[in-house]
Amino acid sequence: MDKKNENGEESVNKDGSICGYDSLHTILSANLKPHIYQEVSRLLHGLNCGKPLELVALSANGKALSFEHDFDLQGFCFRADKEFLREPRVVRVGLIQNSIVLPTTLHFLDQKKAIFQKLKLLIDAAGVSGVNILCLQEAWTMPFAFCTREKRWCEFAEPVDGESTQFLQELARKYNMVIISPILERDVNHGDTIWNTAIIIGNHGNIIGKHRKNHIPRVGDFNESTYYMEGNTGHPVFETAFGKIAVNICYGRHHPLNWLAFGLNGAEIVFNPSATVGELSEPMWPIELANPSIEIFLMVLQARNAAIANSYFVGSINRVGTEVFPNPFTSGDGKPQHKDFGHFYGSSHFSAPDGSCTPSLSRFRDGLLISDMDLNLCRQLKDKWGFRMTARYELYAEMLANYSKADYEPQVISDPLLHKKSP
Amino acid sequence: MDKKNENGEESVNKDGSICGYDSLHTILSANLKPHIYQEVSRLLHGLNCGKPLELVALSANGKALSFEHDFDLQGFCFRADKEFLREPRVVRVGLIQNSIVLPTTLHFLDQKKAIFQKLKLLIDAAGVSGVNILCLQEAWTMPFAFCTREKRWCEFAEPVDGESTQFLQELARKYNMVIISPILERDVNHGDTIWNTAIIIGNHGNIIGKHRKNHIPRVGDFNESTYYMEGNTGHPVFETAFGKIAVNICYGRHHPLNWLAFGLNGAEIVFNPSATVGELSEPMWPIELANPSIEIFLMVLQARNAAIANSYFVGSINRVGTEVFPNPFTSGDGKPQHKDFGHFYGSSHFSAPDGSCTPSLSRFRDGLLISDMDLNLCRQLKDKWGFRMTARYELYAEMLANYSKADYEPQVISDPLLHKKSP
Repeated sequence: MDKKNENGEESVNKDGSICGYDSLHTILSANLKPHIYQEVSRLLHGLNCGKPLELVALSANGKALSFEHDFDLQGFCFRADKEFLREPRVVRVGLIQNSIVLPTTLHFLDQKKAIFQKLKLLIDAAGVSGVNILCLQEAWTMPFAFCTREKRWCEFAEPVDGESTQFLQELARKYNMVIISPILERDVNHGDTIWNTAIIIGNHGNIIGKHRKNHIPRVGDFNESTYYMEGNTGHPVFETAFGKIAVNICYGRHHPLNWLAFGLNGAEIVFNPSATVGELSEPMWPIELANPSIEIFLMVLQARNAAIANSYFVGSINRVGTEVFPNPFTSGDGKPQHKDFGHFYGSSHFSAPDGSCTPSLSRFRDGLLISDMDLNLCRQLKDKWGFRMTARYELYAEMLANYSKADYEPQVISDPLLHKKSP
Repeated sequence: MDKKNENGEESVNKDGSICGYDSLHTILSANLKPHIYQEVSRLLHGLNCGKPLELVALSANGKALSFEHDFDLQGFCFRADKEFLREPRVVRVGLIQNSIVLPTTLHFLDQKKAIFQKLKLLIDAAGVSGVNILCLQEAWTMPFAFCTREKRWCEFAEPVDGESTQFLQELARKYNMVIISPILERDVNHGDTIWNTAIIIGNHGNIIGKHRKNHIPRVGDFNESTYYMEGNTGHPVFETAFGKIAVNICYGRHHPLNWLAFGLNGAEIVFNPSATVGELSEPMWPIELANPSIEIFLMVLQARNAAIANSYFVGSINRVGTEVFPNPFTSGDGKPQHKDFGHFYGSSHFSAPDGSCTPSLSRFRDGLLISDMDLNLCRQLKDKWGFRMTARYELYAEMLANYSKADYEPQVISDPLLHKKSP
């Protein structure tokens, strides 16, 4: 697939589809009159307190870092209504998306070091930009090697207090910043069990706790159940200096109950670090909003829906780039063996409980997305819509308990005339 | 707000927003080059089995009725992959959206008769078009009068086997068509209790059963809890001659658990008949995809999300037009009293379990939307994504049972350094 061309004009794939656009923004702004683009953009991103999202004024130091080291830096602002009995509670939140650095054929130690070096720059940019809570991408210390089914990639797994945590603890302390670090975890106290885990590092560099991915995919190249099992940490919400946060890791976003449970435990911001691609061998698509691969479409749809249904903010992250592995593998789709997982399409973004969302970061480039968000918006939406109060949880507790039994009989009312012949 | 102008050009509201477009389709097709429009349209509506949705060839008789009586008629086709051990199971499904006919100041009997006459034409069009399963809009026999809080509108309530049901039973028999009839129900066997109910009429004109709305809003002009209470019919799935169907009435779409429960009981198509508007006194917005009112935005977003998460088709219906009531009322928003609920913006549409969706019907006109759908797609998506199998329902049954207790303590892990001063 071609990269975006420099003057923003479309170029066309062999199959006639448009290629190379960084985002839906780009394709629409390049092709619509300004006042129509403005309208469509408002329609696509919704309104926050009745207005389009404002930009955050970014620090010169952060901008200099992004320019010098060639990554995107954008910032948007979610407001809430003024309250009389409570001050605004504005926090600055950051999401980082990035590609790996070195070929996967090189020494694991070198690969990891190079990623740490790159992340250091992006985290510095967040720090000097005054970010309070920062989330990194899923399994950020390594290539997303689960497509290979080769167990040697388990070498990248680390204990909760391992090297990557220590690296981030220092930066958390330096910048007074909460950092969420999703890694492959090695649980040495339980016979070297491997987990997909997010570690929450407090703004004083302390480890507040961890959450282990609840739902594990078994689809396409997402052979993750080969490596780790369903998490055993429930649905913890972490009360940090800057707000109550939770982490719904990757495939967990397909499960409305997982989103719900973090909400019931009081989360105000739920992060969804993930690694997701368009289907292999499909023509690549230019835009984050929809795609021949349902995965790409779902990322935006599910996050916004979850933010609204649960009255909290969502920060969605996807890694960037194509990762090529040493040995070819098949994908269970009858197609020839190949060495890559497809293109991780970035497009990280924020969604708010009022249904508005930020534009997405690039499909191709590393980036830091910043958002100021007034957490008061969460309770304001709860008070307005009353979803929690009208939800009838007792009914569903009973329903799910019954459903979980092997002899569950669905509530089906059959037409008694079902087998009568039509007139 | 201006109506759409005839040559498809935009006209502009006082606040600079574009007004009068029938749908997002219209605004984009009028303003983008054809090949770019095609791409954007595919992005907005997703792909079904890797392709844009095809049109259904509509019968000449149906088209004649729609032309003669000035309502929209559109048809789209959702395919599934070919299977080796199972034939395709294609059903033709219809959704009807309509405005009321007479002013709400006229005699209730005349208002009701006029609606019946209009519906007869739309249902005839569905019948001659070969529709197998047809759903009408919420409380279709009456104006959506719950904004008034006046109890006299309860006169429109009918028993399950009342006048409107008898009217539809005849048409169901005539056209060998299942009809879903959402009405205000009067339960005479329980002291004239009022419910918001969908009645399922079989293709032989028999009453298969009923479902009562599970979740009742208390927000803005949606004073529905003034009139009826939370339903007591669980989450029934109706096994009809043409497939397993269920009904998630209106505000129930805000509750992921309600969608889920119909799925767990085996629904292949879930209808969401509703009545929803943009907020009063907000500038009216032209497009169904998003809006200053979260309600309008949510209709499309939630339906598509539910279709994907639960591996079934969704048919979403909203009524059309502005209904003006005899006596002014306030809306709990500090704004002056007024006599209307706002504009019901239509935009009825179908969503599929693979994330694709049809374009929406008009925001302004009565319409019949038809879709052929191969129900095999539901199981194909279940097999592919495995959401049911990875959902860990036991975990959530326990979680919800605990949450339902008054002394529930959320799973919160607090930073022990929370009250330490920052460096």
